[in-house]
Amino acid sequence: MADLITPRTLSGFRDYLPDVMLAREKVLDTARRVYRSYGFTPIDTPACESLDVLLGKGGDESDKRIYLVRMVEAKKEEMGLRFDLTVPFARFAAQHINQLGTPFKRYAMGPVWRGERPGQGRYREFWQCDFDTIGTTSNASDIETALVVNDLFTALNFDKFEIRINNRLLLNGLLELKGLAERAVPLLRSLDKLPKIGREKVAEEMVKEAAVTAEQAGTVLDLAETTGPNSEVLDKVEAFFAASPNDKAAEGIRRLRELLVVAETVGVPEGRIKIDLSICRGLDYYTGTIYETFLTDLPGIGSVCSGGRYDNLASKYTKQVLPGVGASLGVDRLIAAMEELKHPWLTGQTTPAQVLVVNFDATRLGDYQRIASVLRAAGVSVEVYPEAGKKVGQQFAYAEKRGFKLAVTAGPAEFEQSVWKVKDLAKREEATVPEAEVVAKVKAVIK
Amino acid sequence: MADLITPRTLSGFRDYLPDVMLAREKVLDTARRVYRSYGFTPIDTPACESLDVLLGKGGDESDKRIYLVRMVEAKKEEMGLRFDLTVPFARFAAQHINQLGTPFKRYAMGPVWRGERPGQGRYREFWQCDFDTIGTTSNASDIETALVVNDLFTALNFDKFEIRINNRLLLNGLLELKGLAERAVPLLRSLDKLPKIGREKVAEEMVKEAAVTAEQAGTVLDLAETTGPNSEVLDKVEAFFAASPNDKAAEGIRRLRELLVVAETVGVPEGRIKIDLSICRGLDYYTGTIYETFLTDLPGIGSVCSGGRYDNLASKYTKQVLPGVGASLGVDRLIAAMEELKHPWLTGQTTPAQVLVVNFDATRLGDYQRIASVLRAAGVSVEVYPEAGKKVGQQFAYAEKRGFKLAVTAGPAEFEQSVWKVKDLAKREEATVPEAEVVAKVKAVIK
Repeated sequence: MADLITPRTLSGFRDYLPDVMLAREKVLDTARRVYRSYGFTPIDTPACESLDVLLGKGGDESDKRIYLVRMVEAKKEEMGLRFDLTVPFARFAAQHINQLGTPFKRYAMGPVWRGERPGQGRYREFWQCDFDTIGTTSNASDIETALVVNDLFTALNFDKFEIRINNRLLLNGLLELKGLAERAVPLLRSLDKLPKIGREKVAEEMVKEAAVTAEQAGTVLDLAETTGPNSEVLDKVEAFFAASPNDKAAEGIRRLRELLVVAETVGVPEGRIKIDLSICRGLDYYTGTIYETFLTDLPGIGSVCSGGRYDNLASKYTKQVLPGVGASLGVDRLIAAMEELKHPWLTGQTTPAQVLVVNFDATRLGDYQRIASVLRAAGVSVEVYPEAGKKVGQQFAYAEKRGFKLAVTAGPAEFEQSVWKVKDLAKREEATVPEAEVVAKVKAVIK
Repeated sequence: MADLITPRTLSGFRDYLPDVMLAREKVLDTARRVYRSYGFTPIDTPACESLDVLLGKGGDESDKRIYLVRMVEAKKEEMGLRFDLTVPFARFAAQHINQLGTPFKRYAMGPVWRGERPGQGRYREFWQCDFDTIGTTSNASDIETALVVNDLFTALNFDKFEIRINNRLLLNGLLELKGLAERAVPLLRSLDKLPKIGREKVAEEMVKEAAVTAEQAGTVLDLAETTGPNSEVLDKVEAFFAASPNDKAAEGIRRLRELLVVAETVGVPEGRIKIDLSICRGLDYYTGTIYETFLTDLPGIGSVCSGGRYDNLASKYTKQVLPGVGASLGVDRLIAAMEELKHPWLTGQTTPAQVLVVNFDATRLGDYQRIASVLRAAGVSVEVYPEAGKKVGQQFAYAEKRGFKLAVTAGPAEFEQSVWKVKDLAKREEATVPEAEVVAKVKAVIK
């Protein structure tokens, strides 16, 4: 016999066991339902893309994290695994947008791969769940993005969460005003670290990396750290720009104000959307509204759904200018949060079925599968225990371990009278009912 | 400006555009629902596995088709992309079965990758959709596998399909009887080609590759080609073995008979399940019941859902013997068939939403999103057109091109009276209704 190979997942990769996978399917299904309810349509792209499509999108550091893929017979790699869903979408849009037409709203869900050092909650394969509207600069789409995020987390059974928004135009306006527009990239990179390293260190870094004066760094930080209720923050910013009006800043303020008004009209709870001028998302390509989503009871894990507006999605592949706005749900981070918060979708149940039909008599398998099919037709998931040889007590133990709600049994006595025993496993209550009443009896328990 | 990179997918890879993707989501969702209705529970494993886990499972030819994956900094590949969902499941089972317990029923869905020459309907990335019951040799699970396949294709809106079944034990019994047990592998490989190359060439190949006599080849082919109604075939086979009884063959016959009886009791339509002694599936590891599924109107594309019983899933990774049975839905082949058969799920519609709210007046965006949210709460998917600047005619054209069923509009006159216009786009009928009646009006059209 050959030596056994140790069964294992690679470092940074993981299996989903049933309890967590059931929750993940519920999360993905919910996201799909919410995205669809706004008219976002599904697309999918391959896991592998040509290397020239992938490379150079996020700088050298990012390129180093791309997994290279080749066929056995190929000497050199010409393809790699996607590291996000945005680059493939950009390539997809450039290729198909004339057929699809604009505006175009899509969602996409799937794993992405990054060769990073694995750590607590950080994997080399993880799922993203993106939605975007492209081909329009309309603020209606920016506003809708916030509404989708609100509906999404509500549907995910969270009530304590906050959508933080900002608009890059405010900062860009300020930088323009101060003659610092060219230093936007290093300034924003430093500013992005504010919650992690604090004001003082960010200021130091700005002086060092962006070659600004301490006073200039202070002005940027003052704007970013403007706090208070939404209307107050916007009033302060408006006052800030009153002396020297700036078109960009004015447009940013107008867009944020309109977002708040519409959200209120639609009935988004007060306090759900919070203007936070310090968020800027490190990525260079965001140019307008920016979104981050925090779980109030677990702010430490960071944003679980982020995004923003960009001026041009696919400039690497097409001359057609495709502005857009969108956000991405970090599925694995969210599930880690759900585990920590003991979210009700993580029940410990490992079966998707509610009913176990006990396999008491091998010659009655047809009847067991028949009653199961009657329940299935009524929308109830039912497992027939596979082995008639197992003692009934063992079959009940199996049912309880996996989290079935009910057991349905019948032996010779029941078959003689055409009845079934229906047992509520949690309450340990058993009723004997005629076959025609089994569905109603079961449905009364699972509701 | 840098040169543009041509947006393209790699050879053998493809994008899913909305019309096909909407159908694929419906297929996956249906499979998920049916598998769950029998108590199969979801699991997921990574796309990448360690090479020693992947290699040597299907012979050298198979190894050559594995995509190798490495990080930029790694010199040598130590991992590859999975080429099916069975090998990862075997590794998974060996690793986790003690925690999960047996019997264990799982489903898994996802892409797999094979570096094969691409062709008509043959891709290098394609989706599989597997379900398996492991940890039991019970025929109840073999029978259930056929019931699942029947429910699956019924739920997929097919009525003309046939599940062909066989049991390897019949052929193995015959080979044992004739002293040919050791030549089973080459004999089955040849037999597998029967529908493609015909009896004569298979017989020739058996003589050449399996070193049997022409008479022996003829006996194997006679058994395989036994035709007729199910009961007649089984009677003939029983008669065939009557002179020299064989335990394996007897068990194979018993299992097939029981399957047919239970299927009838459960109400599987007559003729749906067909005993076909010629199917044997090239793969060496099937040892019992075998399944193939053919679409009656498109037999040429081959089986769209295949599987079988195996004696031991994970012998490469664990000493624990894990017998099981399962089948795999070939999602991409099925979708190709749906396209060819003009299946009703491929409607040409490219939006998942039924209603477009026309964006007539930019200052009324809050109202448009509000009526949309009322409809969403009632389970209707609604898109608000993103741009108020677009002419109403253009917005209607957009709605018709994408396949929206209804348009909801309101301008100053309607807002004044708190009414909405609801237009059935197919019938070109428009009604003006008070806000409280919009949901009912819309639901009457989409049903």
